Amino acid sequence: MAHAVTEERIRVRYGETDQMGHAYYANYLYWFEQARGAWCRARGWSYKHMEEKGYKIPVVEAHVEYKGEVLYDDVIVVKVWSSEMRRASIRFDYEIINTSTGKVATKGYTWHVLIGTNRKAVTMPPEIKDWLTRDPSQYETVE
Amino acid sequence: MAHAVTEERIRVRYGETDQMGHAYYANYLYWFEQARGAWCRARGWSYKHMEEKGYKIPVVEAHVEYKGEVLYDDVIVVKVWSSEMRRASIRFDYEIINTSTGKVATKGYTWHVLIGTNRKAVTMPPEIKDWLTRDPSQYETVE
Amino acid sequence: MAHAVTEERIRVRYGETDQMGHAYYANYLYWFEQARGAWCRARGWSYKHMEEKGYKIPVVEAHVEYKGEVLYDDVIVVKVWSSEMRRASIRFDYEIINTSTGKVATKGYTWHVLIGTNRKAVTMPPEIKDWLTRDPSQYETVE
Amino acid sequence: MAHAVTEERIRVRYGETDQMGHAYYANYLYWFEQARGAWCRARGWSYKHMEEKGYKIPVVEAHVEYKGEVLYDDVIVVKVWSSEMRRASIRFDYEIINTSTGKVATKGYTWHVLIGTNRKAVTMPPEIKDWLTRDPSQYETVE
Repeated sequence: MAHAVTEERIRVRYGETDQMGHAYYANYLYWFEQARGAWCRARGWSYKHMEEKGYKIPVVEAHVEYKGEVLYDDVIVVKVWSSEMRRASIRFDYEIINTSTGKVATKGYTWHVLIGTNRKAVTMPPEIKDWLTRDPSQYETVE
Repeated sequence: MAHAVTEERIRVRYGETDQMGHAYYANYLYWFEQARGAWCRARGWSYKHMEEKGYKIPVVEAHVEYKGEVLYDDVIVVKVWSSEMRRASIRFDYEIINTSTGKVATKGYTWHVLIGTNRKAVTMPPEIKDWLTRDPSQYETVE
Repeated sequence: MAHAVTEERIRVRYGETDQMGHAYYANYLYWFEQARGAWCRARGWSYKHMEEKGYKIPVVEAHVEYKGEVLYDDVIVVKVWSSEMRRASIRFDYEIINTSTGKVATKGYTWHVLIGTNRKAVTMPPEIKDWLTRDPSQYETVE
Repeated sequence: MAHAVTEERIRVRYGETDQMGHAYYANYLYWFEQARGAWCRARGWSYKHMEEKGYKIPVVEAHVEYKGEVLYDDVIVVKVWSSEMRRASIRFDYEIINTSTGKVATKGYTWHVLIGTNRKAVTMPPEIKDWLTRDPSQYETVE
């Protein structure tokens, strides 16, 4: 259920391009993050709400494979799903479809560690584990 | 003395360009900020240190005039000085010289308000006022 | 008609915040740009299409007044309209409503110059002038 | 010789932090890029010059491991070296030392493909191969 895919539609900004005419390679990490936010909201909570509860999930590893062009004004769909969960960490996988070509433009993943208010890694408490393993079809998307 | 100019040398990153081949217009605000940081250090303190003391100076107004091209790999010199100070606010002015042409590429200013830990504007306490009006020739630059 | 307002809804990204907990001041210029793109599409064309025709409208002046807080995950509505047009230049005005408070969080404007393929300012040709003065109620939004 | 390490010193900008108080994870890719630019200049040429010759080396894969905190105003040293070269591609490795702690804060690598003016991958011509395999101790750094 945690593997259920959430999709986030993003239009590429002019300021996200570089003089090569593509989207600059760092921007994909912003798009991954935006998609993770949508993944949370599709499960009835928000990452903002998690931080208000005293937890954060900073990125400890990121990987991106740039397979196809992403240009200004292209509309991309970022698919995100959780592929693995450990005692104190979680992995998200991503696939970006460029709707202007219909092809997979990008693949990637990120690993995150759950930390508490003391900035130390903590074993996932039941409430957080419940949030991260929810079946999105059972929840209403948070606006 | 507060009017004394501090200069910060910056090389334009590839990721700061856009497909027009220039530096994207938002990046100048990052460069202004980097120059303000240097302005503080030239006066024997750092903006980080100010925040540790419980004060911040968020931007409430920004203005930029883009007069000449700034391209990838260009080395620019951002000149920054404080041009006006009020009870709870301060203005910085900027001039960017593009060393590849020797010309003024950009002019701008920013207005900042001093806020305390409660995020409300506060009258400048003597210590902060001292910092903001120092003559840099009397202080060693903080590394 | 050119004064007709276009609205663009944007959710603030985590990476757009800074350690002060607000959106960093440069990001507003990205949001203005995204709203200008929507402004074009609401008039039956796209800025990308304008560039394909050999014209660009780089920013020559930008002004932003930061009046209220914009935080992570806030949904903002950027209102954009064209307030003035000259022989070779055009001004856009912006107002950002933070939907989490319902208040105007930001005001600003940008001036742009029309340039042709030789990167020199050019008098607006009739076709471009038509695009920039269209009544959006008469056109379908370009996807 | 290609393995010779180049070091680039960077001070973290305020706008590179996020509300977690760290540098946002995408910014490391900007720093890697800045370090690659220094790597080129240490070998007597510049990436800008390579593009003027009609070649580019876009990133096709990026990997980052975030091992330690990088905060506002920290001075980091990005170490970069070329660890592998193939017919049409080259890999760079990175290690970031946070001088405020003296520890390795980040590790990463990027893979790049050489493309010509037609945006297709090309076998490295002798001139480019020479540039990429130079011993920096034999060349003067390009300003």
